[in-house]
Amino acid sequence: MPEVYVAGIGTRLPGPPVDNEALAGALGVNREWIEQFIGTRTRHFARDPQTGEIRWSLADLCAQAAERALGDCAVDPARIEFAVLATATPDALMPATVNLVADRLGLNQLPTYQLQSGCAGAVQALDVARSLIQCGRYRTGLVLGGDVSTKHLDVSLGPSGAGPAELVNYVLFGDGAGAAVLSAEPEGRRLLLSHVLNRLIGTGLDPGQTVEWFGAADRGREDGRAAVAEDYKAVEQLVPTLAAEIVWEMIDDLGWDAGRLDFLLPPQLSGRMTARIVEGLGLPGAKEISCVADTGNTGNALPFFQLERLADVIAPGQRALAAAVESSKWIKAGFALEAV
Amino acid sequence: MPEVYVAGIGTRLPGPPVDNEALAGALGVNREWIEQFIGTRTRHFARDPQTGEIRWSLADLCAQAAERALGDCAVDPARIEFAVLATATPDALMPATVNLVADRLGLNQLPTYQLQSGCAGAVQALDVARSLIQCGRYRTGLVLGGDVSTKHLDVSLGPSGAGPAELVNYVLFGDGAGAAVLSAEPEGRRLLLSHVLNRLIGTGLDPGQTVEWFGAADRGREDGRAAVAEDYKAVEQLVPTLAAEIVWEMIDDLGWDAGRLDFLLPPQLSGRMTARIVEGLGLPGAKEISCVADTGNTGNALPFFQLERLADVIAPGQRALAAAVESSKWIKAGFALEAV
Repeated sequence: MPEVYVAGIGTRLPGPPVDNEALAGALGVNREWIEQFIGTRTRHFARDPQTGEIRWSLADLCAQAAERALGDCAVDPARIEFAVLATATPDALMPATVNLVADRLGLNQLPTYQLQSGCAGAVQALDVARSLIQCGRYRTGLVLGGDVSTKHLDVSLGPSGAGPAELVNYVLFGDGAGAAVLSAEPEGRRLLLSHVLNRLIGTGLDPGQTVEWFGAADRGREDGRAAVAEDYKAVEQLVPTLAAEIVWEMIDDLGWDAGRLDFLLPPQLSGRMTARIVEGLGLPGAKEISCVADTGNTGNALPFFQLERLADVIAPGQRALAAAVESSKWIKAGFALEAV
Repeated sequence: MPEVYVAGIGTRLPGPPVDNEALAGALGVNREWIEQFIGTRTRHFARDPQTGEIRWSLADLCAQAAERALGDCAVDPARIEFAVLATATPDALMPATVNLVADRLGLNQLPTYQLQSGCAGAVQALDVARSLIQCGRYRTGLVLGGDVSTKHLDVSLGPSGAGPAELVNYVLFGDGAGAAVLSAEPEGRRLLLSHVLNRLIGTGLDPGQTVEWFGAADRGREDGRAAVAEDYKAVEQLVPTLAAEIVWEMIDDLGWDAGRLDFLLPPQLSGRMTARIVEGLGLPGAKEISCVADTGNTGNALPFFQLERLADVIAPGQRALAAAVESSKWIKAGFALEAV
């Protein structure tokens, strides 16, 4: 079976960073609450939360991230044989955003796939892309992940109109996109994707996060259903445990010496949670690669921001593990990289 | 590389059939117009179009279709190693509906994937599932497709409130779900999946169909954007041509004798379009397997309804080709089956 390498990485954040002062003002909440409870300093918004104006669509962000990923490894777009995009917040239900991105990039006559997923989405996209290369049908493909969560950020509700489960989401998330070029050859960044873990474990558990969408026939019939709701207590309790299980399962599967792990890309739910998760892993020798305090939780884009930071510091022979937990219906996800 | 077989097939339609008389009454349009323009006799609705009451969720329909598919081939659910669901109309953005279906079926500790797609979705799901088996990681998996398009059917708009592009959709679509068990062994229905075609061809073309979703922040800001819009002229013009290209490309790729093709599963946009498409293919020796006049266009579910009808009539040694065209951003899709 062919090996699969991450050759190039690119990301895109929309607009200038929005700090806690500005976000607290827009939401009518306390700045200190955001800082202490969430621990995220800035995030970026693709839509103006006050006016709803769309400044960047998800397709815009993804196409720009993909251009950067292609540029990063100097891979000719003509070599791209498939595209897999993961998102929880597509621009529309149809056309799938991945096809609008392909259009922007001039990619045609290739299979495209769009995965509907949350925080495990980037890993799921890597998983599908890796299988497409491993089964021998393709040599080079594009993987993308992104979210425009501001489509759900209704600042007009304010702290009294939004329930606590909604308000948590308002301060956790940021918009952004990321992309990676995968290749069957060691080229560009030369990061061997040596393992992918992607497994639903939530059967019998209540969803930790629910994000609704409303169709035309729902207008005026929403029955007060919260568009976005999070069981933050369940998330706080389960994510650190699951993250540790993911990391140790991968170490075991790979037969790696835990003491020789160089980098760790932990789940990035919030700045505060990430610190707790890393503490619980018991891998003090591995350097943490995090971005959430600057980007917010960018959902399906997030592992690409970590990958980009990793790629700049990892040296040949070094190893990295990434873990992601999807709280919607509880998915364990992660991947392993070796610089060659 | 292992071969991949369709072992079991199951489908689920919600409630009793809704005839053109009843649909015309609900929409305030002319019954004859539906019959002559669309050529579909009945469809089934998961939501009451008058009250919006959800009688079946997409997860309900998919879980029931999957149970039937498992029963059809007497495959123990414990053998299912992955699930891939394709839909344009998930119950929510998160959790992904595939994970709620897994929960209903008692499937856990397995990778799940949900593809956001339209009429090519069932083929894309077969494509992903086939790759997962071919790359040697899994032996048995579940493929699902379904749509609840009534989430967009706003009968309160009536013929004057809904634009023609919306009204066409109101009479084309029906709700439903389908599922297939794929296996690396020839078992159950013993239909060898000998080829899958799945390719975006729409770069540079305008979308033929657009389906919006509205997030919480869009409430009251929809700017009159149609939730569902179809360029029916482009669809009428392109789909027959693309269908012929799909079928003849597959015949060529497979090296099949066109005169020896036994069954044809043509695109099922509407009863009227299907008749035109089949006429244009020039394959009079192949028996047509269609269901759209009874089910309406059930989107991602539709090829499973055709598969179910095919499975009851195909004999060992016989061959079938299926073609699907996604008009959203123009995807050519199809697959080939041989009964062994």
